[in-house]
Formats: sequence, structure tokens, C-alpha cells
Amino acid sequence: MSTSSTQSSVTFSELGQRSKPPTIAKLMAMALENSELLSIAAGFTDTANLPTASVQRGVESLVAQEGAPEFLQYGPNQGRPELRRLMSEHLCEQEPVLDYHDVQRGSFITNGSQQALYLAIQVLCDPGDIVLVDRPSYFVFLEMLRGLGVEARSIPVGEDGKIHQTELREMLRAMRVSGESSRVKALYFVSYFSNPSGRSLTRDEKELLAEELSAADLLVPTIEDAAYRDLYFDEPWPADSVLSTPGWEGFPRLYTSTLTKPFATGLKVGFATCTDVEWRAKMLHVKAHHDFGTANFNQALFEQVLEGRGFQQQLARIRPSYAAKMRVLDQQLRDAGLIELGWTWEEPAGGLYLWLTAPEGLDTSLDSAFCHACVEAGVLYVPGELCFGDDAPTDTIRLSYGVLSKPDLREAGRRFAEVAKRFGSNSP
Amino acid sequence: MSTSSTQSSVTFSELGQRSKPPTIAKLMAMALENSELLSIAAGFTDTANLPTASVQRGVESLVAQEGAPEFLQYGPNQGRPELRRLMSEHLCEQEPVLDYHDVQRGSFITNGSQQALYLAIQVLCDPGDIVLVDRPSYFVFLEMLRGLGVEARSIPVGEDGKIHQTELREMLRAMRVSGESSRVKALYFVSYFSNPSGRSLTRDEKELLAEELSAADLLVPTIEDAAYRDLYFDEPWPADSVLSTPGWEGFPRLYTSTLTKPFATGLKVGFATCTDVEWRAKMLHVKAHHDFGTANFNQALFEQVLEGRGFQQQLARIRPSYAAKMRVLDQQLRDAGLIELGWTWEEPAGGLYLWLTAPEGLDTSLDSAFCHACVEAGVLYVPGELCFGDDAPTDTIRLSYGVLSKPDLREAGRRFAEVAKRFGSNSP
Repeated sequence: MSTSSTQSSVTFSELGQRSKPPTIAKLMAMALENSELLSIAAGFTDTANLPTASVQRGVESLVAQEGAPEFLQYGPNQGRPELRRLMSEHLCEQEPVLDYHDVQRGSFITNGSQQALYLAIQVLCDPGDIVLVDRPSYFVFLEMLRGLGVEARSIPVGEDGKIHQTELREMLRAMRVSGESSRVKALYFVSYFSNPSGRSLTRDEKELLAEELSAADLLVPTIEDAAYRDLYFDEPWPADSVLSTPGWEGFPRLYTSTLTKPFATGLKVGFATCTDVEWRAKMLHVKAHHDFGTANFNQALFEQVLEGRGFQQQLARIRPSYAAKMRVLDQQLRDAGLIELGWTWEEPAGGLYLWLTAPEGLDTSLDSAFCHACVEAGVLYVPGELCFGDDAPTDTIRLSYGVLSKPDLREAGRRFAEVAKRFGSNSP
Repeated sequence: MSTSSTQSSVTFSELGQRSKPPTIAKLMAMALENSELLSIAAGFTDTANLPTASVQRGVESLVAQEGAPEFLQYGPNQGRPELRRLMSEHLCEQEPVLDYHDVQRGSFITNGSQQALYLAIQVLCDPGDIVLVDRPSYFVFLEMLRGLGVEARSIPVGEDGKIHQTELREMLRAMRVSGESSRVKALYFVSYFSNPSGRSLTRDEKELLAEELSAADLLVPTIEDAAYRDLYFDEPWPADSVLSTPGWEGFPRLYTSTLTKPFATGLKVGFATCTDVEWRAKMLHVKAHHDFGTANFNQALFEQVLEGRGFQQQLARIRPSYAAKMRVLDQQLRDAGLIELGWTWEEPAGGLYLWLTAPEGLDTSLDSAFCHACVEAGVLYVPGELCFGDDAPTDTIRLSYGVLSKPDLREAGRRFAEVAKRFGSNSP
């Protein structure tokens, strides 16, 4: 076996030819330049608060169960019935207006919610098709679209980050005129404490979105990504999902959620429910080809964790922890005078991210002097331009307070602010 | 949310339109007719011998480790370095002629080996392309090919099940003449204690395969599926993999293996190593879109299991167990007089399957009277025609002795033989 010297003689498929390293890989390569680097880039979760004891208890309960240890055997492709039941109940607790039987009937389990997103797009979109996305949007989803040859088109937002109704109407009109409407195959957005913006969609925004799409006769399959819904700081975000927001009844809808972001990312178990019987069936047919079912052990473990209240306990522990860490980073940036320099951001009410806009004219993108200076100063962030389906600005930044300890967050914030001060307001 | 009454208004992609329920679903639906059914259909593993204690010990070790519980955090997309190291070592123990550094450098971890197969085909094949497959072949792989719009073409075998050199040469010649050769993008086979045939490829077969493909100038990417290699009864199968069999040097090769089939299917961790740098890179780019890494917890758990010898202990336990269960089913069928009725099969030297050929003229396919009679009699098998890329015979059957206990296997064999006797030899 020798790999080192031979050039590839492989002929790749169209998908293979399109596939590229993630843009973020360039950032990670830059990170290697500085071994003392503090990363507020990755959306990792709080290492200090990982639910070790809860996982251990869960495994002990599984092992102690009478009968055959079926949790170590294959499970069903669509996921364990009991876990689907528990997660459907959890969703109905968050959103009591939902019909449990509908949620449960449409439900399935995936390898993290990322797999649900992949399956959804695989069965809906051919290369050249268009997916409408929020602005900004989840960059792994956007890279996945590019990998599948699918175009992303941003839903217009105003200065306040909210969906801009008249611009949306104009965009949809223009797409109808140009004939692009026929290529729009899906709509995607992160609706609770978004990655990357930290924003949540209001009920009004959801309603106007349905209204404008309906008016444009674009009742396209809609994917609501609720990965961060459980990660509020003080109280749940009040807007219901598209599963029960008026105006969405006519849309085929996929609601994706995850057990791993709010509990332990190392376990990779996602939960989804779909209102459309055929769409769901096709996603499951393809899932059978991917893996014929998510790891049964992880699902069984989550049943224990959910039944034993370990999940709720973990949430009770990490919500104030993330809130406190957000405040540490936020305060560090304020104390350093970033507001005065012209930086803007909103304090999120949940999730893992601060979303910053730089002073006018300051380029903070991946190849910018500012980004390089930050790496040299020992702090890594996600350049915001990765998070736009189109027309990406070069002056936004995603910072994550998820993984670092408070002292490290303070230091990372200090380093970041130092560079920001060095680059000044960049205005005359 | 209402799903029950609405017809799907979703427009599906080409892949979505192609996606269908697995053929085996029809069998499962038939199985519902009889609740007392004993299934020797599914390739499940031995429930009585699942490694519960080993898993518990592994989790305890992880929890007891000093430092942050990183095993509950995200891991790298290509898999944990330590697990890749351990699995590369394991492969080099099986095949000492291999260079450890080559194996390790080409290695990555997947959600079971099924995901590696999916990624491999995704980056190699467009709809309409051809993959050469063994005869018979793994039916989930064949269904996956159909889902991706890819055609399977069987490598000709003789009466003895071995690759038939002159027929292979003739087939490759005909494909060159017809121009089909240019659509051949990969070669796939299960080389050790195959699913479904129980056969292993000899060194001679592997060499002649390379020879004929090379002569036909078809140095296509080759996937060797070694999922059952560890599951020998008495001794390892002596033939090396294509990674080190002479004649294969010029071929880009992907060797796939799994930790779940020989240990616990509920854990879903696969291991692969690829000789081609670019092919591997592209599979990993797409994997990042599927899931950005296999569950880190499961990988960390396997590190414990491998380091603590739990894996070897489990193999030492299940090898004689599978051998004994194979003999129970084999003996039951012999005692019932199936040989005299004209049934033929070979005793496997490993794996989970008996591969039967019915007496001439007896139809045992999914829709056959024989298959229905078996379901009525309370025994479920896999109709062999699912396991052929093309030109499927209707008189083969896959039986699995993996999951049932010995008494249940005896009873399942008794029921099967009873139906077989009822249908007789079907010859005048």
C-alpha cells in the first residue's frame, strides 16, 4: 500500500468534483500559526459543564435493565419509538398547541440534526435549484448547499435584523419575473437564538414570511432549524414554531432539533418531525442508505437521560452558565471601549453566539489584515461572511462563548479588543 | 400541524424521486402476518453475547479519566486520532505486510461502514454510471446504488462460486466494445465470509481480478468491504486484502471495516482506509456535510474497549458461539433431509450466513408460494434475488444464525425444512 507518491487517477462524480474543504479549514490552518490561541470561533459547548454523571447513570441503568441488552443491537431506521415519544412530548411541552400524535407520527431520529438537513435537501434539490435562507444563516448548512450544487438566496432583512417585508415582496416578485421562482425548492432558517446571529424570529416575522410566500404562490417545503431552542437564558422564546404558527398550514414543514447541542455534542442524536408523509418517507429511504439507523446505544442512553430528568437537570445547569459567560464576553468588549469605536452587537437571550458588526469600512473577513492580526494576537473568530447565502458583507463577526472558561473568555475578549483598538474606527 | 389529510405537494429531486422503500420492507410487512415468527432473515448479531460489561467498563474508564470529559464534546470530522491509530494497528496485525503509516495516514472513522460505502459512491458515481460488484453481493449496498441511480454489474462466477476468469474477460471485452467501460466508476466486493454467501475470496481470485481489470485498462477505484473479517470461526481467512495483494498497486483502493458487527451493532462505528489522497479528501468533505464527524463518545468508548482488550475478549467469546450456532442450523437442515431433496449449500468458515440454493425449478423469491408458505409456517428468510446486481436467480436464500438462540435456530430450521419438504424437489 503506497499512497504518498501517486497522483489521483480517480474520476469523480459531479458531486465529488464540487466537494471542497470547508472554508473554515483555512481559519484552522491559520490557527496553527499560534499555539497559544484562544478560540471563540467554534460552536463547541461548555466543557466544564458536560453531563458526565448523567451519562454514567444512563449507561448503568441500561446495563441494569432486565432482559437482553437490545440497546447494543441494531435499532429501527426511523429511530427508537420510545425516544421519538419522549422527544415528541418535549416538543409539545414547549409548544402546547401542538397535537402530540401529529408530532409523534411525523418524527424520526438522525445523526445529529445536521443529517436531517442533509437528507431534506438531498431529496428536494437538484444542482442549480435554489433554497431561500435566513440572513445571516448557519454556515455548515450553506456549505452543504454548495456541496450539493444548490444556490442559497437570502431573505432580505432590515437594519434591525428583522425580515424586511417590502424587500422580501420585491425579491419574490423579481424571482417570479425572471423565472427563478420555479427553481426555489425549499426555505431554511434557524429560528431560535440563531447560529450565528443569536437572534430569534418573532411571531410577526414568521407570519409575514408565510404571507409573502403564499402571496407569491411559493408554498415550498420549509425547514425550521431549532437547534438552540432549549438554550435560552431566562425564559423560552415566546414565538411558536412553523408547526403551529398560523399561515403555515399549507406548507410542507420539517422541524429539526437536537439532543446534542443542549446536552452533549459527543452523542450526536438529532430529532425531527415532518408534516409531509411523502417527504418524510423519502428522507428515511435515503437515511437507510446512509446508515440504516442512528446508533441505537446513543438513542437508548438518551431515553434514560430524558426519563431520569437528566436532560432537564443539564439544561438547568447550563442555561445560567451560558448566560454568565455571554455577559463576561459582552462586558469585556464593552469595557474595552468597542461601542465607542463603532462596533455594534445585540445581547442575545440564549444560544452560544455574539454577532458583531465592525465600524464602517473595517474589513474583518477571512483574508483581512484584521483577521490575521487577531490570530497573531492569539484569538480566533468566525468571519461573518461565511454565514451569508449571497451578497456577504465583510464587516461581521461571530464570537462563541460556548466552550471557554470565564477567565479565558475575558482574555480572548481582551485580545480581540486590543486588535480592534489598534485598527480603530477606520473612519476619518 | 396536520399531516393526515394533505396530499404531498412537494416537488422532489431526481434522487428523491428515485428513492424507494427497501425491498426488504415488503418482507417485513409479510412478517406482520405471523406474530410467532422466527426470523433468520436479519443480519443481527448474537443478543445473548452482547458485550454489556465491556461497554460499562469502557464508560467508567472514560468518566474516571482526569481532565475535561472531551469525549462528550465534538470530535474531528475524520475521526479520533487514537481510534484511527488503534484500528490501523489492528489491521496491520491481521495483515503484517502492510505499512502502518500508510494505513494510518489513509484512515478515517464513519457511522458504521455503511456510511463509508455511501460516501465512496457519492463522490465517484453519477446517475447512469456502473459499479462492478461481486455475485452475490451485499443487498443494502445494491439498494444504495439504485438510490443513487447507479447500475450494478456482476462479476461472473462459476458453479463453485469462484470468479470465472474467461467469462470475466469476455464481459470486460464486451463492455469495451459497447462503450460501457467508460461508465464503470468503481468495483465493490465483500471479501471475507461474505454477506450473503459466507464465501471468502481466495488470493488467486483477487489476483486474477486485478489482472483482468488491468488488461482491460480498467484501473477503477476499488472498494473492499471487510465487515466480517474478524468473525472467523477457527482461523483468519488467509488471503490478504487488496491493500497488499500483488496486482492491485495501480488501483485506488478503499478498505472498509467496522467495529460494530464484531462487537456491538448498536454503537455504529466504522473504520476505513484509502490509498488515494484525493478520493479520501473528497469523502471527508462530504462527510462534513453529512454530520461533521461520527459521534465522539462512541469512538472514545471504542478506544477504551480496544485498549482494554475488551474487543479481543468479545471476539474470543462470539467466534465459537457463531460457529456453534451455524452448526446447529446446518445440522437441523441436514437432519431434515434437505440435501436429499436437492438443496445445496456450503458450510461457511465465518460470518453470519448460510447461503442455500433450492432444488432446480423451485422458486424461493419474495413473491413465491414458497416464501409465503415459510411466513405462514413461522420462519422468515432473505430471498436471495435481492443480493444480485443483475440477472438474479430465483432459487437462492440467505439464512442468518446471528441473532437467534440455539433452540430457536433449531425450531426455525425445523419450520423451514418442513416447508421445503412440502414443496419437495420440484423435479418430476
